[in-house]
Amino acid sequence: MGRVSAVDVISLLKSHRSIRKFTDEPIDESVLTDIVAGALATATSSNLQGTTVIRVRNPETRAAIATLAGGQTYVETAAAFYVWCADLHRSAVACDMAGGDFHDGMTEHFVIAAVDCALAAQSAAVAAESLGLGICYIGGIRNDPAQVTELLQLPEQVFPVFGFCIGHPDQDPAVKPRLPLSVTLKDDVYDETNDRAGIEAYDEQMRAYYSERTNGKLDRTWSADMSALLGKESRPFMKDYLEGQGFATR
Amino acid sequence: MGRVSAVDVISLLKSHRSIRKFTDEPIDESVLTDIVAGALATATSSNLQGTTVIRVRNPETRAAIATLAGGQTYVETAAAFYVWCADLHRSAVACDMAGGDFHDGMTEHFVIAAVDCALAAQSAAVAAESLGLGICYIGGIRNDPAQVTELLQLPEQVFPVFGFCIGHPDQDPAVKPRLPLSVTLKDDVYDETNDRAGIEAYDEQMRAYYSERTNGKLDRTWSADMSALLGKESRPFMKDYLEGQGFATR
Repeated sequence: MGRVSAVDVISLLKSHRSIRKFTDEPIDESVLTDIVAGALATATSSNLQGTTVIRVRNPETRAAIATLAGGQTYVETAAAFYVWCADLHRSAVACDMAGGDFHDGMTEHFVIAAVDCALAAQSAAVAAESLGLGICYIGGIRNDPAQVTELLQLPEQVFPVFGFCIGHPDQDPAVKPRLPLSVTLKDDVYDETNDRAGIEAYDEQMRAYYSERTNGKLDRTWSADMSALLGKESRPFMKDYLEGQGFATR
Repeated sequence: MGRVSAVDVISLLKSHRSIRKFTDEPIDESVLTDIVAGALATATSSNLQGTTVIRVRNPETRAAIATLAGGQTYVETAAAFYVWCADLHRSAVACDMAGGDFHDGMTEHFVIAAVDCALAAQSAAVAAESLGLGICYIGGIRNDPAQVTELLQLPEQVFPVFGFCIGHPDQDPAVKPRLPLSVTLKDDVYDETNDRAGIEAYDEQMRAYYSERTNGKLDRTWSADMSALLGKESRPFMKDYLEGQGFATR
């Protein structure tokens, strides 16, 4: 793997798929550091730099996170595993150092930090993929954010948004179709006149996609997935957890 | 500008700076569409695809947004301007189409959609920059999310997270230094033993950076910036706005 690898970014983006099976091949430490350094040069609101990246090396911690994330074993087996955190703690410390009086709990500050964190992580994803590496976001760490907080010894004002596996791919999954741009890209106003038709067309596309990959065994649509996802409570502890961690109370 | 432009992504990331002055040169519509299509192929939690991109073409709308964002005239003058929205409305419609009962207000769903949106936008940023274009996120649209919601006719469950200018750069600003990795990248646990020393070193670096760019007129540090940002209420209407829009009530 070359460190300098020139790619066409848009083609790279369109070929994204999550990788959940990795070879044993390690990644040079200098490459990993460079990916994170590139990611942390990403745009940040008001220069807050509301992102902290925790490289989890301890095998026991990785095993615990793999389990709490729902048995995602690649959290243990990927060449490297990170937890990306939205961090207001550090900037609160800086505020204090400059004689300011940190106003905790502002919902706007939470939005800033969470967005900062996601922007930076996606830069890391593109960087990794540009080098031929595979990545997988692990939203499953939010199954038990309190335990993750304890494992990583996160102070208040730090929120573990997602995990992030990176390694050499040992699988070559298909790219999953996405909703048509007629639905997701709009002009001037949120006109949803054609959305249902677009969703129906996508449902059929996804039905064929799943059927093809299971020899016709799986009859599944995007709408059904959304019904399963949104038609019930989802991590109902999240609001209390975030407020307990000092976020978004006002 | 070539459509296919091979770049070293990590170098590209490290050279990021926001562009706030653009030439009049337009961008091919096919290139703009390709950037958005690439962005919407980004990883998404549970395939929610919680992102809607609104291309704002109407000059009056762009002028209104430039004003409410605090007089950011490049919102009007950039070759293209987008508002990136976290969208649970569309997936709620799909949930309904599949016979589900959308559980609104879940904080976890808000986190998913906001993160989805930011991940996708950052892919667009890297794609644009890989083509030699410049971008600028406009968090200032959150100065008045209610007005943006009205201007773009956003339904409930849609949150305009940030604006996004894209165009041919007509300036060449310096890359702003970032916090040292000794502070932002941690091993295994959130050990902040050396954070204050790292912040102090960064403060001196930023003081020199600002001084150099203002012939010594500006004496400014990151800590002071954080004190100004976090040492007061910030968009105190955000919690009520989001709840009114159907987000994060439980």
